[in-house]
Amino acid sequence: MGSSYGENIKLTVFGQSHSEAIGMVLEGLPAGVLLDTEAIESFMARRAPGNSPLSTARKEADRPVFVSGLAGGRTCGAPLTALIYNTDARPGDYEKYRNVPRPGHADYTASVKYNGFADYSGGGHFSGRLTAPLCVAGAICIQLLGAEGIRVRARAAEIGGVADDEAKMHEVIAAAKAAGDSVGGIVECVVDGLSAGLGDPMFGGMENRIAAAIFGIPAVKGIEFGAGFGAAKLKGSENNDGFRAENGRVVTETNNAGGILGGITDGMPLTFRVAFKPTPSIAIAQHSVELDTLSDTEVCVGGRHAPCVVPRAVPCVEAAAALAVYDAFIGRKREI
Amino acid sequence: MGSSYGENIKLTVFGQSHSEAIGMVLEGLPAGVLLDTEAIESFMARRAPGNSPLSTARKEADRPVFVSGLAGGRTCGAPLTALIYNTDARPGDYEKYRNVPRPGHADYTASVKYNGFADYSGGGHFSGRLTAPLCVAGAICIQLLGAEGIRVRARAAEIGGVADDEAKMHEVIAAAKAAGDSVGGIVECVVDGLSAGLGDPMFGGMENRIAAAIFGIPAVKGIEFGAGFGAAKLKGSENNDGFRAENGRVVTETNNAGGILGGITDGMPLTFRVAFKPTPSIAIAQHSVELDTLSDTEVCVGGRHAPCVVPRAVPCVEAAAALAVYDAFIGRKREI
Amino acid sequence: MGSSYGENIKLTVFGQSHSEAIGMVLEGLPAGVLLDTEAIESFMARRAPGNSPLSTARKEADRPVFVSGLAGGRTCGAPLTALIYNTDARPGDYEKYRNVPRPGHADYTASVKYNGFADYSGGGHFSGRLTAPLCVAGAICIQLLGAEGIRVRARAAEIGGVADDEAKMHEVIAAAKAAGDSVGGIVECVVDGLSAGLGDPMFGGMENRIAAAIFGIPAVKGIEFGAGFGAAKLKGSENNDGFRAENGRVVTETNNAGGILGGITDGMPLTFRVAFKPTPSIAIAQHSVELDTLSDTEVCVGGRHAPCVVPRAVPCVEAAAALAVYDAFIGRKREI
Amino acid sequence: MGSSYGENIKLTVFGQSHSEAIGMVLEGLPAGVLLDTEAIESFMARRAPGNSPLSTARKEADRPVFVSGLAGGRTCGAPLTALIYNTDARPGDYEKYRNVPRPGHADYTASVKYNGFADYSGGGHFSGRLTAPLCVAGAICIQLLGAEGIRVRARAAEIGGVADDEAKMHEVIAAAKAAGDSVGGIVECVVDGLSAGLGDPMFGGMENRIAAAIFGIPAVKGIEFGAGFGAAKLKGSENNDGFRAENGRVVTETNNAGGILGGITDGMPLTFRVAFKPTPSIAIAQHSVELDTLSDTEVCVGGRHAPCVVPRAVPCVEAAAALAVYDAFIGRKREI
Repeated sequence: MGSSYGENIKLTVFGQSHSEAIGMVLEGLPAGVLLDTEAIESFMARRAPGNSPLSTARKEADRPVFVSGLAGGRTCGAPLTALIYNTDARPGDYEKYRNVPRPGHADYTASVKYNGFADYSGGGHFSGRLTAPLCVAGAICIQLLGAEGIRVRARAAEIGGVADDEAKMHEVIAAAKAAGDSVGGIVECVVDGLSAGLGDPMFGGMENRIAAAIFGIPAVKGIEFGAGFGAAKLKGSENNDGFRAENGRVVTETNNAGGILGGITDGMPLTFRVAFKPTPSIAIAQHSVELDTLSDTEVCVGGRHAPCVVPRAVPCVEAAAALAVYDAFIGRKREI
Repeated sequence: MGSSYGENIKLTVFGQSHSEAIGMVLEGLPAGVLLDTEAIESFMARRAPGNSPLSTARKEADRPVFVSGLAGGRTCGAPLTALIYNTDARPGDYEKYRNVPRPGHADYTASVKYNGFADYSGGGHFSGRLTAPLCVAGAICIQLLGAEGIRVRARAAEIGGVADDEAKMHEVIAAAKAAGDSVGGIVECVVDGLSAGLGDPMFGGMENRIAAAIFGIPAVKGIEFGAGFGAAKLKGSENNDGFRAENGRVVTETNNAGGILGGITDGMPLTFRVAFKPTPSIAIAQHSVELDTLSDTEVCVGGRHAPCVVPRAVPCVEAAAALAVYDAFIGRKREI
Repeated sequence: MGSSYGENIKLTVFGQSHSEAIGMVLEGLPAGVLLDTEAIESFMARRAPGNSPLSTARKEADRPVFVSGLAGGRTCGAPLTALIYNTDARPGDYEKYRNVPRPGHADYTASVKYNGFADYSGGGHFSGRLTAPLCVAGAICIQLLGAEGIRVRARAAEIGGVADDEAKMHEVIAAAKAAGDSVGGIVECVVDGLSAGLGDPMFGGMENRIAAAIFGIPAVKGIEFGAGFGAAKLKGSENNDGFRAENGRVVTETNNAGGILGGITDGMPLTFRVAFKPTPSIAIAQHSVELDTLSDTEVCVGGRHAPCVVPRAVPCVEAAAALAVYDAFIGRKREI
Repeated sequence: MGSSYGENIKLTVFGQSHSEAIGMVLEGLPAGVLLDTEAIESFMARRAPGNSPLSTARKEADRPVFVSGLAGGRTCGAPLTALIYNTDARPGDYEKYRNVPRPGHADYTASVKYNGFADYSGGGHFSGRLTAPLCVAGAICIQLLGAEGIRVRARAAEIGGVADDEAKMHEVIAAAKAAGDSVGGIVECVVDGLSAGLGDPMFGGMENRIAAAIFGIPAVKGIEFGAGFGAAKLKGSENNDGFRAENGRVVTETNNAGGILGGITDGMPLTFRVAFKPTPSIAIAQHSVELDTLSDTEVCVGGRHAPCVVPRAVPCVEAAAALAVYDAFIGRKREI
């Protein structure tokens, strides 16, 4: 039941890359909220395919249709359901991978898990396309958090080993594309405007919650909060964030903790970084296996794939973060 | 409700650093298992305080007493409850931190979250001491996984910036102790013997599940699977693990995926690395705030603290990993 | 988050009586199942409106459209999503009840709960119409249980005080309709073919699970298992079901327990009875209140309502029972 | 995982009739609550064995020892754990039932479920004794609800077919005892002081929540809300509760709904009735089976059993109701 997330709100994501529709159900939203559909659509546009020659060539409007949960344009307390129809589905493109799993994709593991009955077309339910309904949910959570003065912003901090230089990042992606290859990268996210006290102890900490959401995005292989892996090299005297009183509240002088102590927000910006592996779809021949005969073979993945998912992953990271943070935010309300 | 974990088995951890007892309840275990109490105790001994002059001076036997869930020494299907009595509790030691939170600890955030009523003694429910009941649960899961041919092993891969050299790691810890300071590090974990097909899509992937358990260990600030953050610098052609048939099954030629594709195990060793920040308790003066008057002050944390938690964290990482993996393993049983 | 059900499979029901669509998402089904759509449709037909002049006049095809979760007509492991479009929606009919809640309906409580933003048209998410997606899920569970030799059958045992006589039940309904009034009744359900050992102790017993599903059907006000309320009048020597060996297995001589001991199935038919209140929509004037001015008024509910929901509730009871039983059945698989 | 209950607070009950201890963990309580231990103990005294010659002869102080979750006598946000030591355990008494299950008990079903490894002593985890920790949790919820003006009160409405006459109820129990037999009965419960708006739609309604908790009490075979099974015999015009404005709020003229419409409280007293079967332990010979040889035999249950559990069940019903209501009450807080 991995397609659901949340304790205080509950998101259920459904659909496959080439099924009739993908979508989401979101339960537990407050009633009376006027959805800012323009904001949702411009958020969706940030992850939409076809934005750039360096992205996938698949064309999808990705406009969510809300079939339940609204009355007069406002949330009415009932589960909110959004559908996104798959208009440019081409399941036939994938027939050849049915028996020959693509390296780095879930083809093989899904085939084993579902005993040969997985939907192999375009990664089925494991496709990056499923981040579209995640982004619908995220856009709504961002709107709700925004109304509370909480902002969620992510950016591509590193692509193909190049940090913080957009032109060079672009070059590195273009070079990968030219070579039929792909690159990964790192997305950095900041949530600010949070008050102290969100999150729960142990397995309910903000790190646990955010990590559990973020690893729901395909291609994520690591997450670190605040100084993260870098903190492992620091001394306690360097890494500890001293407290200071400022304008009648407690702040920290540095933010190596990434705004989280003991799993609970401390009121400083919540920061984390997410590692994305390079897109597994590449036009270069790779070793694979014919599953029916268990004989070695090669596979060369053509199709409409992007040489780098990182730019489109930025809103996905915001969406997953907003979902986790809003879920914790709502949970906090029952305590105070 | 952050003190519970699991979908197919359910662990609930309770207790505070200086409460009468800490402990755990584990629901959903198979009935008829003869607990290997010797193995549990030797596992507990690996995380026990007082093993080394470089560890905390607090002395606790940490012997779990099973008060329910067994009949004739075997699990009987009822929830298994283990208590560990806090015999060397000294709550008085912490009176001074009630109003002056220690940097890097959960003192401040717990105080806000619980509206001033948190148990501030020794970190209360946020203390590293709560990893003792986690280790009881983990030792049991390790036994159950072992019976299925699945092994979980972790090691300190890096301490204070020193990788893979035990003598130098020891020096770096001793130097930190001498300076009243502390160091962090990285723990590496491998689970092998797993068959392909464990885990669920999206939010139920093995990465999500393991991360949600691992961040339950205090001081963890990052986690990466397989090539992790390193994968973000690789090309797809370098990072993808080619498939090959070997002895009648599918294997991968490399293991940059850390044994997980699409959240599902692929049958290769499941590998991950965990970043631990340096122990926040240091004997050096740090900036803090008097919470009642909101005035700046300094705090110097004496007490019985270790200059590095990493060596004792190794079994904790194994325990959390075993818990997550066994939970997924049991879940897989209902599918086949 | 009341619109979800299940521990080992997860059903999420969405939609309102007059939203664009109603539907369901079902996670955790086994992969590879060829859905028997004919069986689903004939099951749906049993609850469909418009079957009889004594039923509601609203016409809906109630044909589920599966937009995800299938590949080649078989379940593929991904969440199964079915939509039922509301084709005969007439939200305008309900404008007058916005401010004057209908007695016996959820209008008033939904208005309070959702702070005035509930969808008041036709009961919104609280409408009996939401049993249509429940029946889709139930029909699938019935198919899956059937493949295991488990059958779920319910019948109207009593209507308007008349037990076991279909002609008289029909008369009683017709008389209520003529009077602009309504009648309730009792549905009896039997699940047979269950082996012993399903269910969990305490809050996870079969009674808890089935009750939690059955009260999800609107108008249910009571449930009893086996001898139920009658057992409260028996002596232990009368109520206890003696054990006997028969054909190499243990059976009971009577079945006052309704096939459940300690919450766990004992291998005998699982039996229960469900009390339905009379349809609250009646054409007789009733006392109500204008919510905006808090002044007393009267309301007379016209519209397309049935004088008795019991006949259409029979498949709904089967559906809810099948859902609960299949969920427990799948859970049992991970234990053995 | 049936031994846990709750969505917004989480109760976990552990222990067996003759294990070292029974107890409970309660997560999610507000911090800062001074537990009224006197009230808890006098509540426990109401269900304690040994109150009357007509009750079980087993003597247990049933005093809960809180080993975690408190700091300075107040809840501190950490999971609250209470132990009740089994001081008068006599597991040997039950050796003979290991192979010959007692009719009406969970002996047989537990044996099947746990593959022969269930703790058969005194019903193990299925014993009525496990209602003691339920009552600890319930007493705390009653205290918390009381502080909000919400009262939970139950009473024995019928025993052995005798309604509302305490002297006759006593006679009927004494007669059953003399005959080595037992009687059942009905407990009626009222929760008042609730505001409108508690509960969730569909599977999260107050009936679903309360039923799911109440069936956790052994020997419960039925539950009905408001007019319940009686409503099935009424006309809509009789059963509907008309609305009226009174003192600036909406009330109903009657309360056939038992204070619940569409699963949501309507502000009227929440009422329900619970059917208890007669105690299965009777001193009369009954048919049973030797499980190892599958041959028919007889069993006569001696021991320290009560001829009627209903009087002691009254506080258990209050406890389960308080738990369910408080859980919904806390959930409501996050909405407003």
